Amino acid sequence: MELWFKEIDESESGLTFRVKKVLFTKQTPYQRLDVFETEFYGNVLVLDGAVQITEKDEFVYHEMLAHVPLYTHPAPKNVLVIGGGDGGTVREAVKHADVEHVDLVEIDETVIEVSRTYFPEVSRELDNPKLTILLMDGIEYVKSKKAHYDVILIDSTDPVGPAEGLISAAFYRDAADALKDNGVMAVQAESPFFYPGWVRKICQNLKTAFPVVKLYLSFTPTYPGGMWTFGFASKGLDPVEDFDPSRVPSDADFRYYTPGLHRAAFQLPAFAEELCGQNTPRIRVGKSRH
Amino acid sequence: MELWFKEIDESESGLTFRVKKVLFTKQTPYQRLDVFETEFYGNVLVLDGAVQITEKDEFVYHEMLAHVPLYTHPAPKNVLVIGGGDGGTVREAVKHADVEHVDLVEIDETVIEVSRTYFPEVSRELDNPKLTILLMDGIEYVKSKKAHYDVILIDSTDPVGPAEGLISAAFYRDAADALKDNGVMAVQAESPFFYPGWVRKICQNLKTAFPVVKLYLSFTPTYPGGMWTFGFASKGLDPVEDFDPSRVPSDADFRYYTPGLHRAAFQLPAFAEELCGQNTPRIRVGKSRH
Repeated sequence: MELWFKEIDESESGLTFRVKKVLFTKQTPYQRLDVFETEFYGNVLVLDGAVQITEKDEFVYHEMLAHVPLYTHPAPKNVLVIGGGDGGTVREAVKHADVEHVDLVEIDETVIEVSRTYFPEVSRELDNPKLTILLMDGIEYVKSKKAHYDVILIDSTDPVGPAEGLISAAFYRDAADALKDNGVMAVQAESPFFYPGWVRKICQNLKTAFPVVKLYLSFTPTYPGGMWTFGFASKGLDPVEDFDPSRVPSDADFRYYTPGLHRAAFQLPAFAEELCGQNTPRIRVGKSRH
Repeated sequence: MELWFKEIDESESGLTFRVKKVLFTKQTPYQRLDVFETEFYGNVLVLDGAVQITEKDEFVYHEMLAHVPLYTHPAPKNVLVIGGGDGGTVREAVKHADVEHVDLVEIDETVIEVSRTYFPEVSRELDNPKLTILLMDGIEYVKSKKAHYDVILIDSTDPVGPAEGLISAAFYRDAADALKDNGVMAVQAESPFFYPGWVRKICQNLKTAFPVVKLYLSFTPTYPGGMWTFGFASKGLDPVEDFDPSRVPSDADFRYYTPGLHRAAFQLPAFAEELCGQNTPRIRVGKSRH
């Protein structure tokens, strides 16, 4: 017998892979959760039918969500991660020597349990003494904090069901209030190729709460189309102009993020420039040596 | 009845989409050729089971293969395209006012015929008066030309079967001989995530024939993993240092390529840097205004 997983959306297309073994299946109060063992991707976490992380390529998403804002901020001490109960974003955040404390707010305890069991590399920092785990709704949590965090990372599922409120203007305003004056935020912002409507909405809503909003991209093979957007938002810091690459240790154990990619990721394909009104500064890309 | 196409490789994973209609199927002397009508991607050209172009996303591959070398060369007059009988690369090449002549060398006439019939936007410049179409093996063709071309574009299928010789060191040396002294070349160079062995081999072989060899990347949703590599090779011109963005018309009708992306595409993810010994120049990514 062969089992094949398919993630198909309205485009009538998508990713498929063979499942060697179904390791875990549960309907939690929030979502359906499956863990599959596969040949190429290792273990795969699927929420409501959508691939969230695979052992093979999770480093791309987690490094790009975490390090772009964390290296833009000159001295990130207090970090908030919303969603991301798998621990991958936390793992990247605690690599920063500046970071003194991370609060992880996850609504679904099962995600944390499953990651501890089936994704040891992803969850390996979930017992880090710098970390506090809070099992609650991130939308409610941010309302309770004012001018507290340096960096907020929104590691959410697709904006349907419980995560829909995580792309609302009201949530983004609360998040802005929870940040200190020089705070920065990054959010997973969907695919510009498959879901341009979501990307546009995330950008528009971010702009109601933050003066600086820009999109950046990474390759994530197991997300639709392989091209994924993140939204960067801040109260003033620019992710390219204010980025100091000398803050990145030359011996950092990153598999995707580099200082060069940090800046390159903000260069959007022409078709995606209108999604956030983000025209690349064409006059500034000339020969730097002239 | 529902028909679903799957492109699966040794990874036991891949792309799947629903086929609304099978428009064309033929075993030519060189390969099996299928054309499918789909909901999201429009018409899709499949060679030996591998997606080559879709109406929805072909612009990414064709723009990036053509414009990076064509805007690196200061005055590209004579261009050679090997493979690419669909006409997409030719369409991009003739957008350059400098280009006086393009030779298209395609081994399989059926690709050209099928593109004219089912991909009108891709094939629309195949009757351009600047174009000469030669139905023959590109490997043999390049041996006949010496110091003739300014730019060569290798628009090949995967390096198995008839296209295997198109990544050999011998072929690259012949191509170098067919280029003028300041000539540049770009080649499709597979996926760094799924086929790092091919990427490494292409790079190594290019280096036996060219002093300047660099990889660059683009997002191509319907190629495995969505992340695709191109190899840039030249007799001296550097694709970043010698690129003059003012050569790109501000009203160019590009949907992917921008001057900013031209340079950004050479910033490889950390895991891909070793494939071509291409360390990103970290010291040079600092704040340009300082």
